[in-house]
Amino acid sequence: MSETTLTQTREGAVLVLTLDGATTRNSISPPVYRQVQAAVIDAAGDSTVRAIVLTGANGFFSSGGNIHSLKASAQKSMAEVTANTDALNVMIKALRDCPKPVVAAIEGGAAGAGASLALACDMIVAARDAKLVVAYVKVGLSPDGGVTHFLARSLPRQLVAEMCMLGTPVGAERLHALGVVNALCAPGAAQAEALALAGQLAAGPAQAIAGIKALIEAAPEAELATHLDREAEGINRARYGTEASEGLAAFLEKRKPDFSSKS
Amino acid sequence: MSETTLTQTREGAVLVLTLDGATTRNSISPPVYRQVQAAVIDAAGDSTVRAIVLTGANGFFSSGGNIHSLKASAQKSMAEVTANTDALNVMIKALRDCPKPVVAAIEGGAAGAGASLALACDMIVAARDAKLVVAYVKVGLSPDGGVTHFLARSLPRQLVAEMCMLGTPVGAERLHALGVVNALCAPGAAQAEALALAGQLAAGPAQAIAGIKALIEAAPEAELATHLDREAEGINRARYGTEASEGLAAFLEKRKPDFSSKS
Amino acid sequence: MSETTLTQTREGAVLVLTLDGATTRNSISPPVYRQVQAAVIDAAGDSTVRAIVLTGANGFFSSGGNIHSLKASAQKSMAEVTANTDALNVMIKALRDCPKPVVAAIEGGAAGAGASLALACDMIVAARDAKLVVAYVKVGLSPDGGVTHFLARSLPRQLVAEMCMLGTPVGAERLHALGVVNALCAPGAAQAEALALAGQLAAGPAQAIAGIKALIEAAPEAELATHLDREAEGINRARYGTEASEGLAAFLEKRKPDFSSKS
Repeated sequence: MSETTLTQTREGAVLVLTLDGATTRNSISPPVYRQVQAAVIDAAGDSTVRAIVLTGANGFFSSGGNIHSLKASAQKSMAEVTANTDALNVMIKALRDCPKPVVAAIEGGAAGAGASLALACDMIVAARDAKLVVAYVKVGLSPDGGVTHFLARSLPRQLVAEMCMLGTPVGAERLHALGVVNALCAPGAAQAEALALAGQLAAGPAQAIAGIKALIEAAPEAELATHLDREAEGINRARYGTEASEGLAAFLEKRKPDFSSKS
Repeated sequence: MSETTLTQTREGAVLVLTLDGATTRNSISPPVYRQVQAAVIDAAGDSTVRAIVLTGANGFFSSGGNIHSLKASAQKSMAEVTANTDALNVMIKALRDCPKPVVAAIEGGAAGAGASLALACDMIVAARDAKLVVAYVKVGLSPDGGVTHFLARSLPRQLVAEMCMLGTPVGAERLHALGVVNALCAPGAAQAEALALAGQLAAGPAQAIAGIKALIEAAPEAELATHLDREAEGINRARYGTEASEGLAAFLEKRKPDFSSKS
Repeated sequence: MSETTLTQTREGAVLVLTLDGATTRNSISPPVYRQVQAAVIDAAGDSTVRAIVLTGANGFFSSGGNIHSLKASAQKSMAEVTANTDALNVMIKALRDCPKPVVAAIEGGAAGAGASLALACDMIVAARDAKLVVAYVKVGLSPDGGVTHFLARSLPRQLVAEMCMLGTPVGAERLHALGVVNALCAPGAAQAEALALAGQLAAGPAQAIAGIKALIEAAPEAELATHLDREAEGINRARYGTEASEGLAAFLEKRKPDFSSKS
């Protein structure tokens, strides 16, 4: 069994991160968590990267934690397993904290920590026959990596209970109808579709998009009055910036804005 | 370019507020924010008003902030632009704090601060071809007026990200399927349908409806135990009131209740 | 008019609680609240019960509080009516706090406090023609039993406002599309379908399922970082347990796990 590796490629201003571990449907483990986290943090600090696509090779997104490793973990010390879940959590937080938008491209399915990883992205493109599976329960475990947080804030509790207590797979078409999946495509086309979406994001105003990501992240926790102030602060700062200057001028001149060198 | 004005008409106990600015698809600006806010606060204190319809003339709800004004705002002082977003926020809070139900009637579309305004209402009736658009990002700005708060608490984060980071319009039919739009109608019929809905609300028990609005507003922030207490307090106070007295009597007498003079 | 009674039967490890009050469509009142609460608390402490089905006899789930009793309550002291809503709230909290999964089986409809009761369950199976009705407003009252809490955290505010301010019934098919109802069935089949679902839950790992229920319950209130820690703590404790030991072994041996004596 070969370990999953993370390959990094570039398509213009889009960084493409691909999980690749053919024998385990791109299972992920602490070394991969650390590679994804490092890549995301590097991208956050690299002004030539304006959007990220996260995907899997071999017709699958990621099967999550490898079952053999999970079984072996019962022989490890609590300190070691805690270090491993910490690495997972740090990766998930890096994705949510990254000021650049991240698009998941899902072929086949995203299971376990792979589902957490997909839901930690800002948008999701999925092949029509792909599935989201949170089946920790089938091996006597409860979920990790934020998946219960992400699901419980997006979907009714009853559906989340079914997904997590029974491990019922939910297909991309249903998730699209519910608003969790942004775009459906033919099997095999998820990465290309995600790249197109990420390309649009990369052509957008980077600072405004970072501000929007932070606003969406803060909304569930903030009271309306607090959030209105935060939105106002954001737009008022942006008014004087180069992105708004270009965006408003382009609008009035009926041309496409060029945000590429404006942030 | 003429400024948008707010016209007020009455249909029985329903106050109809209509944004009217033909040359800018009812764009809104601080003078309009203050007129809407004042009208809503007056209605809150006027016992003859029992529901509000908020709509736009000229086949559109509102295009939000005018782009020329937005461009000009970069020449204004931070104090001045802050005063303007404050006026927007005060209007939005007035709508959420108003004890009377507000129904948005949307023809064409609601964009930018116009989308915030629509989502600040309690219910939405929309023409089948109407769209909600949060496209600040296209001019290099982040959203204001509560739209990221309202959306993030109603829809999955992925869909909200797409709407706000790319400015993707979302149609009324999709919003109806997701539960954000209450009723769809033929183009041109939104105001009449909203009036019918508001008429039903106006015939309802005003105090109970105000209590329900406050309960729905408080639910996302309150723990279950706290919220159960608040609901209990509300129903127990209502039991002794004239609205319940009439409502229960009418139910048992198999007649329509008359709440009109009961609150 | 006969009082509704609660009957308890067992189907293997599934406890079936049936509201039965033919003349009032299984209306519920403080004596029933206390019976349901006691049954749920007993079940929580009974290791032979691994899942609960809550249902109604007579082709209906529950019509909620009886209108005659509601009318009579205006003659009671505030202390007495407060004791009654307290009993309702204690029952609702018992359902949410119960570590065992509860499946509502809905025929006909769930109205008023009956809707609260249905939504307090973890999953819902409903006959295709069943309806959820929150029509307190029609008799001049505001809702109780947590229904505004449950709905406001699952559905867009606009739909919740319509359900609660107008009492608009929402059908099982729409609730299924929105993710609130887990499974639809032919009229008459809800209890059998719910039993099948509860049977699957009962065959699952009881401790992991209890942990999942607690995680889903905590998610809306917890920040991501806090919730990630809680998930990590849960899975790391579970790794060393007998449920994971059996689950992982069964997975690798390609057999069905037997969790029945593992918790």
